[in-house]
Amino acid sequence: MELLENRIAKDGTVKEGNVLKVDSFLNHQMDIGLFNEMGKELKRLFSDRKITKILTIEASGIAIAAVAAQYFDNVPVVFAKKSQSINLDGSVYSTKIRSFTHGREYDVIVSKKYLSPEDHILVIDDFLANGCAIEGLIEIIKESGATIEGVGIAIEKGFQDGGKKLRESGVNLHSLAIIDSMDASTGKINFRHL
Amino acid sequence: MELLENRIAKDGTVKEGNVLKVDSFLNHQMDIGLFNEMGKELKRLFSDRKITKILTIEASGIAIAAVAAQYFDNVPVVFAKKSQSINLDGSVYSTKIRSFTHGREYDVIVSKKYLSPEDHILVIDDFLANGCAIEGLIEIIKESGATIEGVGIAIEKGFQDGGKKLRESGVNLHSLAIIDSMDASTGKINFRHL
Repeated sequence: MELLENRIAKDGTVKEGNVLKVDSFLNHQMDIGLFNEMGKELKRLFSDRKITKILTIEASGIAIAAVAAQYFDNVPVVFAKKSQSINLDGSVYSTKIRSFTHGREYDVIVSKKYLSPEDHILVIDDFLANGCAIEGLIEIIKESGATIEGVGIAIEKGFQDGGKKLRESGVNLHSLAIIDSMDASTGKINFRHL
Repeated sequence: MELLENRIAKDGTVKEGNVLKVDSFLNHQMDIGLFNEMGKELKRLFSDRKITKILTIEASGIAIAAVAAQYFDNVPVVFAKKSQSINLDGSVYSTKIRSFTHGREYDVIVSKKYLSPEDHILVIDDFLANGCAIEGLIEIIKESGATIEGVGIAIEKGFQDGGKKLRESGVNLHSLAIIDSMDASTGKINFRHL
């Protein structure tokens, strides 16, 4: 998606350790007009699928999923929570996800009330790198018996293996921007065009 | 706001300890059509203010703020983060907030890049009870030198003192639904009408 690639090139910052900072428009400060365009593009990419619910994970996926849902006939959005809250009933699907960004493992939970075998799920998240978070969400969806219609990602780090693994396992994955390589010393970002 | 009150009455569940569960439509599964109507109403309530940015806090405030921003000319939305992430630069505003729901204290941070003295801020969050989270966000905004134009809340627990404290301190606070009392044994919820 050209609009997103141009924005990453303009406002993204490459840091040592393959870190891409996009917190001026994507995951701390958020450009809602851009999210609208991303939502329209996700609808176009998954227009052949019947989506009844969108699943994302806190925190950065939530706004993208919520704005995108407007283009999917306002289907409900469920966000997976990153730790047990006393406000949630005990009846949850859960899995453990390793976060390389935060250097730790955490529990991810979704109430069993909000995923059922009748649901057709589109997973939306902001980043795909090693794929741990998406694999965790897919595990939860499989446990619920719902159908995984696809995974929509804003930015995929194509030089890490999450996207490759998901595609090889048959997941209907679309990323709005795929980064093939990036260089912290020059700031140069190369995008993959399919 | 009648639409929200009706939804709380229909789908909210009152639990012992003054807990109101609205996770079927507000803070776990989210009804984006409802959020659109809430966004329109927030715009109406704050139409006399010039808003340049919306500030919220992860995780449940994010979707409400993002959808509402569409009715404020797509102003940027910034969400305060609940713990230090290695992906954030060191240069942040921070404060400590006590969460009664989770029974602990946590650090809340906003990058200094995204709040400045030129900003006119509307704070949006899902719940207002004792007011700790909103007070923390206000502290951060004051530290940045930005102007606080108002605070918009989905559900205020009017029987706790957060709303009273904020109004007495001169904050331009609007809550879309204010609960005066609720009863876990009968499930009855009484709303305040101003």
